[in-house]
Formats: sequence, structure tokens, C-alpha cells
Amino acid sequence: MALPLIAFMSDIKAPENVQLPLFAGVDVGGTNIKVGLVDNDGQIVATTKFPTQQELGPQAAINQARSVLDQLIDESPFSWPDVEAAGLGTPGPMDISRGLILTPVNLPGWRNFPVRDALSIALDKPVTFANDAAAAAYGEFWVGAGRNHDSTVLITLGTGVGGGIIVNNQPIDGSHSHGSEVGHIVIDSTDAARMCGCGHKGHLEAYASASAIVARTQEVLTERRNSILTQLIGEASPLSALMVSEAAAGGDDLACQIVAETAIYLGRGITILAHVIDPSAFFLGGAVDFGGAETELGRHFLDLVCAEVKKNSFPVIADQLTIEFAQLGSEAGFVGAAGLGRIEHLKKIAQRS
Amino acid sequence: MALPLIAFMSDIKAPENVQLPLFAGVDVGGTNIKVGLVDNDGQIVATTKFPTQQELGPQAAINQARSVLDQLIDESPFSWPDVEAAGLGTPGPMDISRGLILTPVNLPGWRNFPVRDALSIALDKPVTFANDAAAAAYGEFWVGAGRNHDSTVLITLGTGVGGGIIVNNQPIDGSHSHGSEVGHIVIDSTDAARMCGCGHKGHLEAYASASAIVARTQEVLTERRNSILTQLIGEASPLSALMVSEAAAGGDDLACQIVAETAIYLGRGITILAHVIDPSAFFLGGAVDFGGAETELGRHFLDLVCAEVKKNSFPVIADQLTIEFAQLGSEAGFVGAAGLGRIEHLKKIAQRS
Repeated sequence: MALPLIAFMSDIKAPENVQLPLFAGVDVGGTNIKVGLVDNDGQIVATTKFPTQQELGPQAAINQARSVLDQLIDESPFSWPDVEAAGLGTPGPMDISRGLILTPVNLPGWRNFPVRDALSIALDKPVTFANDAAAAAYGEFWVGAGRNHDSTVLITLGTGVGGGIIVNNQPIDGSHSHGSEVGHIVIDSTDAARMCGCGHKGHLEAYASASAIVARTQEVLTERRNSILTQLIGEASPLSALMVSEAAAGGDDLACQIVAETAIYLGRGITILAHVIDPSAFFLGGAVDFGGAETELGRHFLDLVCAEVKKNSFPVIADQLTIEFAQLGSEAGFVGAAGLGRIEHLKKIAQRS
Repeated sequence: MALPLIAFMSDIKAPENVQLPLFAGVDVGGTNIKVGLVDNDGQIVATTKFPTQQELGPQAAINQARSVLDQLIDESPFSWPDVEAAGLGTPGPMDISRGLILTPVNLPGWRNFPVRDALSIALDKPVTFANDAAAAAYGEFWVGAGRNHDSTVLITLGTGVGGGIIVNNQPIDGSHSHGSEVGHIVIDSTDAARMCGCGHKGHLEAYASASAIVARTQEVLTERRNSILTQLIGEASPLSALMVSEAAAGGDDLACQIVAETAIYLGRGITILAHVIDPSAFFLGGAVDFGGAETELGRHFLDLVCAEVKKNSFPVIADQLTIEFAQLGSEAGFVGAAGLGRIEHLKKIAQRS
């Protein structure tokens, strides 16, 4: 079945600045699939994305990834032999060792599909398989916010709270492909703890995800009406985490309170992780960034998170831990996937010699 | 200064069963220093221990470790050239990358001592330095309870609650030598949370260490007098965790309640760690084992811990996670230290080739 080729923008680097070999990265999301070519230094050589169209099934998407990469390479000064290996990130749950995507919530048509080997066959390259959050964490570690740190944790605040932990130059995948589930650590052990989407109580995700922020805001709004949000919901429902962020940026008291409480919840989670992993740095990614590093609110949020962590952690961690926003945005996933493909490639070379 | 040579038992293996090369392990504790020779398969070739005598300072202890290893080798069919490398475990806090022991509570005379390099000079071998709990965790992973698992967490219940996390064949040391501080994760976020010795509230150590068990028991004893412990304290004070364990083994209701609550607290901590690390197995070590795997109470305690973890963790973890007692006892530390020395040695060989 022929899929329509999607128009795309790509940014081919001047070949003299590219460090060969290249590595291909594929980042599968529920809406789009991002692909790219990354050089040996982690520089993006070319990138594009296309709709996942999950109703057409995973093999169609894999074929499309090949077509799109063919096109990227055709438009570049490089050729397929310059590409040594590839990396693939997908949502979980998954079986990393067997290369299977299992029962992804947003990709029902992809259930139990041997996605790693299918991509490897389509590209005729070895493929390293990872959780999408682990791939993004590796991307930030390799060439993003973490490039000067020796071990890092990425926490993504979005629809859920996900993350990836990089220690000893590798993600913690877990023995059952459930490592780095930082959204599902208990930060509230009280009887009144909130229920998480996973069915357990008190998890970080139940406090700091976009939907949790909306739920917490709505609860306060029923008691306190003197917020700009009361008016906004009337004009343009439904309430969103972005609306809360914008209201807080505008100085709305209730929204500012929600942001401050979110920082405390996140700080609690980071403190636990800091005492388990003791990384050099934590990075915050995902859509819920309260404006990010470029805004006053974003920096204020980060300050509040840091203050909460400092208050509750060992002195050396309080003194030396870095907590910042991630830098690669939506490119972190495919860059990190390509980087993980590179690491496997380097290991194979080391074993051969 | 000549130290008195301590009499010791050693168990030299038949040379035909030993897989060369050998690795030396040194495990520094506040009371004793355990040393041993371990072969390439992790078999103990010879082992002994001597008093730390911390008032004589670290260099005297290092010299004694060399003398004792000389004697072990003299009595064996092997010689120093058969020993490729060594490993050293000490209590923290420490600076692993610089090889320093910093401000150990039980070794005041060892402050800021470059213990790794001092041992390396004394033995004329490369020395790998690790936290003592990380070394023990590696020993259990390599040849103990974890020998058939791909990633493991050791939790030691003793004076404090310590631990070591082994992922990708390495301990998580942390960027500031504070990784794997599993006793210092918050398991109680209520206002009534107990204060931990580290100065923060709600940590696992404040609930499941020997002294925490004593404190919790004493609180209940002030309200309920119908426990054998009331009588025992009268006869042989002070109360100890071992007395609580023995009373529970004898069926004392109050002591059984303390054991059951300890299991729940530990289960909470393990659930958090399981969602962060997702190891193949957790192992419980240390003096507070409620009799261990050979007793009904020990097995009951383990069942209660498992039940609490199953109730609160992801289905795949609830189904597949192993939680058992550790197997190497006090030998885990020097065996693991030797094993970490071996891993570094193997890495150097791989880099050379």
C-alpha cells in the first residue's frame, strides 16, 4: 500500500561540518513520528516528521520511516553506507529485550508488534530499542542540557509524568522494561492522597501532570471564585494546564498558588530520586513548563522546585545538584534514539577488536 | 609501628578448583576489617578479618591488610602475581572518584584519608573504591542471591538502613558518591512522620532500622503492657531489635504487630524503588532479618513485604519481582569489593585490546 509522501522541511548540514558516521533516530508518538539523521557528535544533520496514522498499522509507519529517511539522504551529501545504526523510541508498555511494543494506550493498532526488528529489516541496519522517555533523556544527556553532566534524570511533565534516568552512559531500562517510571513514585502517603491513572494512590503523576494540575485547580476554583480562571472557563472551556500557567504569569493568585504547590510536589519526587540515584542534574521537559527558562514564571517555578529539594536532601546534594529545564524539546527523542544506536554500535566495535 | 598479628582461620581452596586470576577484597567496618582473596568466578579462596583499631589510624590498618594478605597468600598455593587487582569498600560519606573517605561516623580517625591510593600503594595493585553497601550489593549480585538476576537491589536493615543498586553490572555510586541511599527515601509524608537520624522526616531508616524498631516498640509498650517484652526489659534492659524478633517468633502479639508494620514500611520503600529502578530482584541483608530464610518468622516477614509491594506496584512488577533474603552475610562486602576490582580490570583489558 502506497502512503502519501508528506511534505517536510529538512536542514542538511554542510558536509565538512559533519562527523561521520551517521545514526538514524526514529521517535514514535501517538500523533507524529519524528525521524532524523544525527552525526557522531550528536549534531542533527536532517530531520522531519510525518503523521503516525496509527489506523494503518505499524508496518505502514515503518515503511514510511524508511521512505522519509531515503528522501532525507537523497537531499543530503550522504548515502546509506554512511549510516551505521539506528535507534527507535516508542511509548510503553514494551518488552525492550524482545523488541516488542506491547499495549500502548495511544497506539492500539500497534499491540504486540515486533517494532525493533521490523525497523531493522526496513532500514537494513541494527536498531536499538528504547522507551521514548529514556530516548529523550539520553538525547538531553548526550547533546542537550546534560552534555556537561555525568549522570542525569529527565522528568517530563505532560499528559502524564514520565522520565528517563541515565547512569554510566546508559538509560535504566529496568528488568521488566519498567525502569525510570518517575511519575509513579509515592509522594503523598496520607489517607487523602490522590488516585493516579495507573490505579495506585499518591503518585507524582497524580499531582504534577497536566490533567492533575487541571483537577487541582478546579477543586480550588469551586471554593474561590476571585480568579481570572473563573472568567476564562466561562469564555473558553475547558480548563487547561496552559491556562493555569498563563493566569499565573499574569499574576492571578489562585493560579500562582497552583504553580507553587506543583513545584513542592515535584520537589518531593526529585528529592526521593536524588537520594536513590544521586545524579549530577535533573532536567524538566514536556509541555507543562510554565513558560520555561525564558520566562519569569518558568524561572520562579524552577526556583521553588530547587528550594524544596534543598530543604529536604543531603547537604552535598543540596549544595551541588543542578535542576534546569531541558533544552532539546521535541528533538530529544530521535536524537537520543540515534545516540543509543551509536552506543550499541561502539560496543560492538569494542567487542570485535 | 608493628601491629600484633591477629590469629585467623583461613580456608584455602584446592588449586585445581580455582579459576585464576585472583582478586583481593577489603571491607572496612567500624569494628573489623575483612579481607579475602576471590577467584575469577567469585569463589572465596581465603579470608580472614582483624580488628579495625581505628585509634591507630588508617595507614596502620592498610599496612595490616597487606600483612594479612601476605599471610593468606603464603599459606595458599598462589603468589602475589596471581592477584590482578583489588577492591575496597568503606562506610561513607566518601568521594569515590577521588578515593577519599570523608567523615565516617564510626571511624573518626580516618577523616579525609586517601584510602584508595594508600591501599593501592600498600598492595602494589590497582584498587577499585566503593561504598561498603554497594560492594555488598555487588557481591550478592555476582555470586550470592542475585547470581541469576540481571539487576538487583540490596537493602540492609541494621543500625541504619543502607543499600546498593546494581544496574548494567555496576553499582549506582551517584555523582556525589551518595547514590543508592535507599534508607533515605520518604515513605511517610504525613505531619506525624518520624525524624530520621539524618535530620529529615519520614525516611525509611526512621521506620525499619534496628533503633527505629526499638523506638516504635517502646512507644507501643508504654500503652500496652501485656507483652513478654515488658517483662524482658525488666530482666535484661535495654530493648533491642533482636528481642523484638525473638518475642515475635514466640508469638507475642505486640512484637508480631511491630514485625508486620516493619514489613509494610519496607514494602513501601521497595515499591518506590521498584518503579524507579525496576530491578529483577530485591535482597534483604543486615542484622535485622527476623531470623532470615531458615525461620518461620523470617519467611512470614518476607511474605508480608511481598504482599505490600504486590498491592502497590505495576502488574508486571507485582507478577515478576523477586524479593528474598541475601545469602552471603558478612562475606558480601569483601567478595563484592574484589568483584568490582575484577570488573575494572576487565575493562582495562578490553580498552587495551
